[in-house]
Amino acid sequence: MVKLRETEVILRLCIVFFLLLTSCLIGLDSQTKEIAYIHKNVSFRYLLALEAELYIDVVVAAYNLVQLGLGWYNVEQKTSNPKWFSYLLDQTAAYVVFAGTSAAAQHSLLVVTGSRELQWMKWCYKFTRFCFQMGSAIILNYIAAALMVLLSSISAFNLFRLYSPKRFFRFKSSS
Amino acid sequence: MVKLRETEVILRLCIVFFLLLTSCLIGLDSQTKEIAYIHKNVSFRYLLALEAELYIDVVVAAYNLVQLGLGWYNVEQKTSNPKWFSYLLDQTAAYVVFAGTSAAAQHSLLVVTGSRELQWMKWCYKFTRFCFQMGSAIILNYIAAALMVLLSSISAFNLFRLYSPKRFFRFKSSS
Repeated sequence: MVKLRETEVILRLCIVFFLLLTSCLIGLDSQTKEIAYIHKNVSFRYLLALEAELYIDVVVAAYNLVQLGLGWYNVEQKTSNPKWFSYLLDQTAAYVVFAGTSAAAQHSLLVVTGSRELQWMKWCYKFTRFCFQMGSAIILNYIAAALMVLLSSISAFNLFRLYSPKRFFRFKSSS
Repeated sequence: MVKLRETEVILRLCIVFFLLLTSCLIGLDSQTKEIAYIHKNVSFRYLLALEAELYIDVVVAAYNLVQLGLGWYNVEQKTSNPKWFSYLLDQTAAYVVFAGTSAAAQHSLLVVTGSRELQWMKWCYKFTRFCFQMGSAIILNYIAAALMVLLSSISAFNLFRLYSPKRFFRFKSSS
């Protein structure tokens, strides 16, 4: 069982690392350019989905740190953490990060391609560095999301193997 | 166990219903308006994320129909379907539908609000019916995604309760 707990700790640390790195890349991303004699500054606040993604990443990183703290406390006290609690929150966090990243990727794609039918200008050929940094943040965010999918599977495994394969929703006798 | 299998069948039927309803709402959504003496027709093809969402919905609805067929076949042959196969595909389908819906919601929101900073026009005040139909499709799609999250939890439960709570990744003796 120690093997599984170690895997979980390592996964959570990697997730926190990727989420915080993504948040920094998004939060610190801005570029100023002169367009038709006007200084135009672009930052992540211009794209609603990126702002949402930033807040989601920070909250989920904090959640994983709390889980790590709880896990360490439980080891010290020789108790075990509530498995349903971990499973539901890990699963929710994985879905929210995955959805937030996809919405941000969609919004960024629009900034790159524009939309001829809707007469929306593209911007990335002017703000190239801004867009490259945004693109790398989204890729890192998808890596974090994939790790969270793996983590939520481990939480599901930890929870459901306590149940009997025969009797519906009953805990299993220890075997 | 019959209770769980019935729940799964009902869930899959509801999911197929919502996904196909969403696909029809998106696919048949178009509106023509005269703007500055020009006939402008707006359809889902104008929004890349909606087109992607439509294809995702159709593929996932087909997948669930195949799973229903497999389930019916297994009942007839008194065999059981490969649980890892169901778990991985159900989980993947849930994430993809959830992410696709979020990207489409983001794109639709931009059509409603436009973007002052990026000088992107809003369109929904002109194509109101088109946007209302799109909005309802996205709400129905989120309902389908929520049902798929539930379904993937049942698949996880079906799979992981076969494993022992004591020995790492070993099947449990039947108890």
